[in-house]
Amino acid sequence: MSSTQAEAPWQAIARRKQADRAARIPAQWLIPHSHSQLLPKDPPQAQDGPQPVLDVPRQFLSEAEISITETYTVASLLSALASRQLSAAEVAEAFSHRAAIAQQLTNCITEPLFDSAIKRAKELDRYLKDHGEPFGPLHGLPVSVKDSFDVVGVDSSIGLAYLCDKPAQKNAVLVDLLLSLGCVIVAKTNVPQTLASLDSINNVFGRTMNPLNRLCTAGGSSGGEGALVAMKGSMLGIGTDIGGSIRVPAMCNGLYGFKPSHGRLPYGGQALTGPDGMGRTSVQAVAGPIARSVEDIDILLRELVPRSSLWGEDCVPVDATAWSGHRHGRQHGRQHGRQRRQPHGSGQHGEFVVGVLRSDGNCTLLPPIANVVDEVATALRATGNVTVVDLDCPPAWTKCQSVMSKLMTVDGAEVMADMLAATQEPLVPWMSTRFRKGQPQPLRRVADLQAQRAALEREMLRLWVDVESDSDSDSDGHGGGGGGGGCPRRRQRLDAIICPVAPHPVPPIDAYNAVGMTSSWVLLDYPAATVPVRPCRLSDLQLGVPLAGEPLGSWDRRNRELWREPSFDRRIYLGTPLSVQVVVPRLQDEKLLDAMAWVDDAVRGSVSASTGGSPSSGSGSSSHHTHTVKPRL
Amino acid sequence: MSSTQAEAPWQAIARRKQADRAARIPAQWLIPHSHSQLLPKDPPQAQDGPQPVLDVPRQFLSEAEISITETYTVASLLSALASRQLSAAEVAEAFSHRAAIAQQLTNCITEPLFDSAIKRAKELDRYLKDHGEPFGPLHGLPVSVKDSFDVVGVDSSIGLAYLCDKPAQKNAVLVDLLLSLGCVIVAKTNVPQTLASLDSINNVFGRTMNPLNRLCTAGGSSGGEGALVAMKGSMLGIGTDIGGSIRVPAMCNGLYGFKPSHGRLPYGGQALTGPDGMGRTSVQAVAGPIARSVEDIDILLRELVPRSSLWGEDCVPVDATAWSGHRHGRQHGRQHGRQRRQPHGSGQHGEFVVGVLRSDGNCTLLPPIANVVDEVATALRATGNVTVVDLDCPPAWTKCQSVMSKLMTVDGAEVMADMLAATQEPLVPWMSTRFRKGQPQPLRRVADLQAQRAALEREMLRLWVDVESDSDSDSDGHGGGGGGGGCPRRRQRLDAIICPVAPHPVPPIDAYNAVGMTSSWVLLDYPAATVPVRPCRLSDLQLGVPLAGEPLGSWDRRNRELWREPSFDRRIYLGTPLSVQVVVPRLQDEKLLDAMAWVDDAVRGSVSASTGGSPSSGSGSSSHHTHTVKPRL
Repeated sequence: MSSTQAEAPWQAIARRKQADRAARIPAQWLIPHSHSQLLPKDPPQAQDGPQPVLDVPRQFLSEAEISITETYTVASLLSALASRQLSAAEVAEAFSHRAAIAQQLTNCITEPLFDSAIKRAKELDRYLKDHGEPFGPLHGLPVSVKDSFDVVGVDSSIGLAYLCDKPAQKNAVLVDLLLSLGCVIVAKTNVPQTLASLDSINNVFGRTMNPLNRLCTAGGSSGGEGALVAMKGSMLGIGTDIGGSIRVPAMCNGLYGFKPSHGRLPYGGQALTGPDGMGRTSVQAVAGPIARSVEDIDILLRELVPRSSLWGEDCVPVDATAWSGHRHGRQHGRQHGRQRRQPHGSGQHGEFVVGVLRSDGNCTLLPPIANVVDEVATALRATGNVTVVDLDCPPAWTKCQSVMSKLMTVDGAEVMADMLAATQEPLVPWMSTRFRKGQPQPLRRVADLQAQRAALEREMLRLWVDVESDSDSDSDGHGGGGGGGGCPRRRQRLDAIICPVAPHPVPPIDAYNAVGMTSSWVLLDYPAATVPVRPCRLSDLQLGVPLAGEPLGSWDRRNRELWREPSFDRRIYLGTPLSVQVVVPRLQDEKLLDAMAWVDDAVRGSVSASTGGSPSSGSGSSSHHTHTVKPRL
Repeated sequence: MSSTQAEAPWQAIARRKQADRAARIPAQWLIPHSHSQLLPKDPPQAQDGPQPVLDVPRQFLSEAEISITETYTVASLLSALASRQLSAAEVAEAFSHRAAIAQQLTNCITEPLFDSAIKRAKELDRYLKDHGEPFGPLHGLPVSVKDSFDVVGVDSSIGLAYLCDKPAQKNAVLVDLLLSLGCVIVAKTNVPQTLASLDSINNVFGRTMNPLNRLCTAGGSSGGEGALVAMKGSMLGIGTDIGGSIRVPAMCNGLYGFKPSHGRLPYGGQALTGPDGMGRTSVQAVAGPIARSVEDIDILLRELVPRSSLWGEDCVPVDATAWSGHRHGRQHGRQHGRQRRQPHGSGQHGEFVVGVLRSDGNCTLLPPIANVVDEVATALRATGNVTVVDLDCPPAWTKCQSVMSKLMTVDGAEVMADMLAATQEPLVPWMSTRFRKGQPQPLRRVADLQAQRAALEREMLRLWVDVESDSDSDSDGHGGGGGGGGCPRRRQRLDAIICPVAPHPVPPIDAYNAVGMTSSWVLLDYPAATVPVRPCRLSDLQLGVPLAGEPLGSWDRRNRELWREPSFDRRIYLGTPLSVQVVVPRLQDEKLLDAMAWVDDAVRGSVSASTGGSPSSGSGSSSHHTHTVKPRL
């Protein structure tokens, strides 16, 4: 009793919540005291070094568990489950065990669901035995979901003490959809306080660590997902994204992250961070996967997307044939007997056309990022199959970040501030200088922001579209002029864009600032994905060479802090993953999968070539390979 | 000078604007003084009777002009133009001439564009001659657009004096798209003051008359389109719809009106009635066609929809193959060599399943409406190809009208009130008791309305979807329970809904009140269309028989006023068109065309049968036939 008297209410809640969480890890899965040096400290100590832990679980897993969690793709695992080479129960147990170790090493989980996962898996096994066929197309697939997704009987606290001990009464719509297809949910995962920052730390659960490098951020807001999937504690995870919250943790953890257009996956049943319905007036977050490969994402989405409009009131129907059509990519062709197809590109001869967008005009690209974007462009050109064009930064792209940051905050954060105040929760360090309770904006101000957004959308549309000039264009615009006077025809000229995820590499903890290159695509509702390319090398760091040019503005000043010697030691980036972002026009999500595969294939080829490895060590030909950057770190 | 001294500013503007308009009708197209009894009075006098004028233009047109304007479908006209059987110039002139007469008889046009239309058509002719191929797939098609669409050099006054003499600098996006495909725009058409009522009357241009019956409303807000297309002054018209503004004038004028989902056709470049961007915070109007047949709409949309995402930042891509695929419908099969296809229905054996929704719980269906909905259901059943199921009114549908009317008015009408005040414009009679300047709603109130809307969308989704029950459902919801415990699978069970357009027939002028059955589908963003069925007959009127039951509420009290004898003479409805509304789920617009064709075919068959006509007199086999109800009046 006495120990709690000096405590604020949130502290007791957090302590009990952490104890509950710890109790849900079976004793035999605890990392022994003899290995306690593996366990993280918060904050991490620079003198301890990066302490990568990606392979540590192997020390504590059986051979079978290592095989189950490491050697399958989603497709090959589903195949092994459907053919009863593996039981759902042993798969759920292997991933639960690995997730439990991942949790101890990176603090990535909020709600372990190991018991119910294994119970559910046993029932799936019984179903398969009784019915002679799998329960659904994702029968037995172990997945994890961000803490914000409601799961019946479990808190969606998103790390706020105020929301603890309020178990959900219904599943989130996407959770129901995953379950209806046969998935097994092994855990819910950690997030930042308020969900509005890029480091997954909060007062209830603490900080999630980057398994590749403890000194660097695991990213956010789906940072627990990033760490857990990188640790192979689930086959894939479902996050949400409004400012970059899927793509940033994918970048930080060397994974693939797919932010769909709004309407592709159901979003209902999330913990609310503001008034219900506010997203519809301003800008809407979306749900999407973080996974180990393009193919894993493809397999998942081709089951989810064509069904989503039957589940979510926010979802739009798609042509199922278009979605399950053959995709580009050697993995698919080789491993699954699918025909390789030449995607219908916008080039003059039907080839795929990729535009390269470098700086957004707000931040200077730090050299490792400039390098990796150039390398991807070169690798795409080298395939001989893709036309690559350099794009000037459209003025609209520079403006998106500002409009987006205003739209994301129109509600004044009143609800969030009240929830924090209710248990006297302090702000975590990064939020302490950024979070401020305000007033909701007047409706006309919000309408004005929406009008600005529409204008930016119109300007950005011109990036994708060729307007045929009309030779006899002497038009008065509505009838006069040449046959087509003033009414030129249009065609799509660009299939995809590549650009950075951020202007900087994976930064140290609590130093992620530049979200413009991710949040802008949400403002525009363009599907956008992270594709990991290679680890950062010593040659990227240009040690001793200052960054050229002057800061472009306040965002760039902060960005340059992450490069300025001697106050900043660039060697922290060594070995951290470098990624690119791939973007397509609104609701062309299936084309994003094609574009990711083109980039991925091009990059694996060139990585293999430049490191002297054979193509098969890069990717693709072996079902044992998964596209994390880890093997090349 | 002296005559204007007592005037309010708007009066001089209106007088000059009307004089300008009159001056744009060539003298030789004026209805001679000898026929001045044909010209309308406002308000119409009951003792003058309905004075239908649909066939009056024939008195003043040449044989060739009658043939061009009456005997073609969109497809056959395009074919005649492309093969140079007809020149674009003679087509534009014939429709302009007919439109000029329609204008004099019904006051349907705001901006005659006859000169520029004929000029443009001549240039199209030259293009075809020079290039040996049509300028575009809609080469030479004469169309009209609602006054709200910007056309370069022309006012978009929407009947407000304040907006006169402000010619547009750019075309609306949809206007540009139509022009890029070869369309010729013959006129812009009349609308109601504020665009927020269902009678197309304003201080600048006056009242549009219903060409079928001057005592009844022509509908609104795309009422000028309804009258002009019914008069065959253009092949088809483009209106906009948020509360019913395409479907209501289609109903009033015996035409087909198609309200797409948001995102199917570009909406940019409209006269603003409130702050720019407000629609994105609340609810968005859409553009769509009013036409003489399902097929005409189909031909238009299959050219527009697959291109729209290249033009409008608000448009979503579609699979062009899906859109240009074969549709159900005997007209198509017979006239254009397209194969009849069995649409992919949701029935157990792939058959099309149509649900019948009668009252929305807010208004009692007046007997002619109840009759026509029943007849359509019977006719669909009689085809043997369609499964028809009766639906109970979902509680959500009853609630939609109220949420929608609140969302439509969140801006407080400040901008509109200020525009009216600027020239001292008075409110027209219907608006005078309904329009009130208010304050924009607080953002949280708007968010709350959006949350209510999302809840209604979720409830309505259950109408379309079968949730398979799971026999061993003892779930804890996230893993426990049977293999599929708590996670039943889903399938679409319903392809389309038929329901009334309004609970009453085409009412007398200034008496249209019940928009719930049209506005609710915009709240839900379901594509919805009007299909005319048959004229109202004496037997529908149940003269001397009072309506059973008690009013369901205030909306129903007004509705019942339109039936209560002796204060109301039901015989005003005689001969006016009775229609049904056809509705499909969000963004399944191509399915709406299928559903319309099923209803249309079923109805034409049964009308023919019940009137003893042969099927060919009803529709379909003759290219001369167009589906207005006129031939059967």
